[in-house]
Amino acid sequence: MQTLIWNNLTEVEKQQALARPTISTSDELKSAVQNIIDFVRLQGDQALFELTERFDKIMLDSLEVTPQQIANACELVPEDLKLAIQNAKRNIQVFHEAQKLPIIDVETQQGVRCEVLTRPINQVGLYIPGGSAPLFSTVLMLAVPAKIAGCKKIVLCTPPPIANEILYTANLCGIETIYCVGGAQAIAAMALGTETIDKVDKIFGPGNAFVTEAKRQVSQLANGATIDMPAGPSEVLVLADEFADADFVASDLLSQAEHGADSQVILVTTSENLVKQVLQSVEKQLAQLARAETARQALSHSRIFIAENLQQCIEISNQYAPEHLVVQVENARDLLPLLDNAGSIFLGDYSPESMGDYASGTNHVLPTYSYSKTYSSLGLADFSKRMTVQELTPQGFMDLAKTVERMATAEQLDAHKQAVSIRLAKMTKQAIQPIAK
Amino acid sequence: MQTLIWNNLTEVEKQQALARPTISTSDELKSAVQNIIDFVRLQGDQALFELTERFDKIMLDSLEVTPQQIANACELVPEDLKLAIQNAKRNIQVFHEAQKLPIIDVETQQGVRCEVLTRPINQVGLYIPGGSAPLFSTVLMLAVPAKIAGCKKIVLCTPPPIANEILYTANLCGIETIYCVGGAQAIAAMALGTETIDKVDKIFGPGNAFVTEAKRQVSQLANGATIDMPAGPSEVLVLADEFADADFVASDLLSQAEHGADSQVILVTTSENLVKQVLQSVEKQLAQLARAETARQALSHSRIFIAENLQQCIEISNQYAPEHLVVQVENARDLLPLLDNAGSIFLGDYSPESMGDYASGTNHVLPTYSYSKTYSSLGLADFSKRMTVQELTPQGFMDLAKTVERMATAEQLDAHKQAVSIRLAKMTKQAIQPIAK
Repeated sequence: MQTLIWNNLTEVEKQQALARPTISTSDELKSAVQNIIDFVRLQGDQALFELTERFDKIMLDSLEVTPQQIANACELVPEDLKLAIQNAKRNIQVFHEAQKLPIIDVETQQGVRCEVLTRPINQVGLYIPGGSAPLFSTVLMLAVPAKIAGCKKIVLCTPPPIANEILYTANLCGIETIYCVGGAQAIAAMALGTETIDKVDKIFGPGNAFVTEAKRQVSQLANGATIDMPAGPSEVLVLADEFADADFVASDLLSQAEHGADSQVILVTTSENLVKQVLQSVEKQLAQLARAETARQALSHSRIFIAENLQQCIEISNQYAPEHLVVQVENARDLLPLLDNAGSIFLGDYSPESMGDYASGTNHVLPTYSYSKTYSSLGLADFSKRMTVQELTPQGFMDLAKTVERMATAEQLDAHKQAVSIRLAKMTKQAIQPIAK
Repeated sequence: MQTLIWNNLTEVEKQQALARPTISTSDELKSAVQNIIDFVRLQGDQALFELTERFDKIMLDSLEVTPQQIANACELVPEDLKLAIQNAKRNIQVFHEAQKLPIIDVETQQGVRCEVLTRPINQVGLYIPGGSAPLFSTVLMLAVPAKIAGCKKIVLCTPPPIANEILYTANLCGIETIYCVGGAQAIAAMALGTETIDKVDKIFGPGNAFVTEAKRQVSQLANGATIDMPAGPSEVLVLADEFADADFVASDLLSQAEHGADSQVILVTTSENLVKQVLQSVEKQLAQLARAETARQALSHSRIFIAENLQQCIEISNQYAPEHLVVQVENARDLLPLLDNAGSIFLGDYSPESMGDYASGTNHVLPTYSYSKTYSSLGLADFSKRMTVQELTPQGFMDLAKTVERMATAEQLDAHKQAVSIRLAKMTKQAIQPIAK
């Protein structure tokens, strides 16, 4: 880990030190993904069978996982793990249910009623990557809010072989439709539809470079699908002072580092002494990790910044805009009003990132790559959309008519004005008629 | 206008009848825009001056509009128009202030506190197109929520010559930084930054094909900017029964048709009689419109659907997912729970689209091209982002520790588990020590 004293850096060096490595999607990858999408568009299910055989080395009988397969998988998940997943689900459910938006219903002026209605996105597709470690926790993070939002159709795609934990968790969350297909072909299938897989409106979930590129491409197609957010490598920034426990800080840095060699790991602190202790603790803890090699690679390009004071630590964090922000300082909560641009914030010694990754209740799908400046932590809102409504009474209409006519005239939109004038004229006529009788 | 009886159509014909024309961005346009973006990236302000001279035929002295220019412009706006704009602003303000999100703060289980904090996006760029008619109403729709959200830096770009109404409205909304630059070069400048124009985090606002393509391209750059939503031609769907006033319906169809030859105009009704009257009224009203030719072109590809009953009308609308949905039926509000996938809904005879376009209080920046299935009407949320926070007490941590350890083990993420175990061990040690003293 490279240690830098913030005040010794020039403006340019500061920017460089906080810059993420450029994500370069090769032209080969782009065109490979485009070919997969085209293949799925043209050949539908057949393309999915062929691509699964080619990439996953598995010949499928059918794309959809059967209820029997799900039931069998559920029996094989250890009881203590089931209880853990159930506990996590309860917390995630409580937190996401609290995100239900109130109906907004106001009179902006007398007789002019305006509302915001929140409605579920009807059809959503959830993607769960395969690989050696089954990411069943991500099933919770996607399925729980989709269910609470009330999405009518929820499908889940994940490549074979599907881990029992994934089927158990999906089933626990009430996901009935699970397709055994992964990679760019799964994203294409959900975005475009095939004979078996219905087209969805929006696709959620993490994945490898193929999946990420496929999500990007289908989000650019006129008849594709919307996606949750752009993806980059996972990140943590730990903000610590001299009161922080070096072992805790080291363990949080390592939690991030083990995710992948491209993980971004940053420590910002006021204490040089803490830095020394953390470096020692990292070495000690690394020895016990199965993914030590991956973590070492991530740490090799990670950075430690020594700041003048807490205020400067906060500025560095806000500028970097981390996905995860772990705050281990005395009275961590006092910093909260000043912290900005973070996906999720972990306050104090007993809120390590892994608590939020699994079970505190917050969502672990978060904006990376400084997107926390504009994107939000995944939440109920992402499975919903807001429609506005207006309803004017005749009197409300009349009171606002002149305003709209005047503005439409100034914008040279005659028909917009006429839609008001024609109503006004008829109302005046109707109001006069009774007297004329 | 082509009239179709919904029940007479096959499934494929139904889909075709509701399909939007493909938006085809030519390769020429794409590369022209890319060149402009590259030019601005490399040459900064100089590129903006040159491109303004080339496209707008104006040699600028400076990019930023001076306070004196703004003051002069404000004097030239007629008093009655000022009052109209002020009235509209008040309503927009009331409606968007009502959208402030409550703080969410829950204990998901004892000792596990989770929160959602809403924070303004720090730096936003607003784009207002030029052209013959000054779209000052869009200034209200972008600037009012940006201000309420609390965005720290708000800049506005619009091409020369800038209409007095735009400067007046921006000033009224408290926008202090206005740049006299338009087109793809304005989008590039806001996304990348130049000597004069600071880079922003997110760009909002409508524009021509160049602006739309530039927004798309900068949203795909790793160091570009996020954008409000994808853009397509403006649309209205009027849903009417036999009680609707044909003149009102016709005027609402024409309000949309005058926007552009590519505007999408749809009438869905249960009443053949209404269709006849509407067609007659459209002809009559067209005669009085300055933009009659544009409206005629839009109407030439517009469609009327005759449905069996209101239920079918609703299904058609939900499937089409219009930007604007005007509901002129008896007891319009009764339909509201069944209506879905619309940017903004206008209920009843006295809520024409132009009321929402200008002054009811709702936002007129809305998802087109069926994006209302997943995107929302522009609102306060779009100028904000949500961060989550978690804080566990030592007891809360201990209660949740086993759950997280068990899940991390199953996902083979050792370091995630270790971040919990290492804390647990220290807590146990500390708890035992007092007894050992």
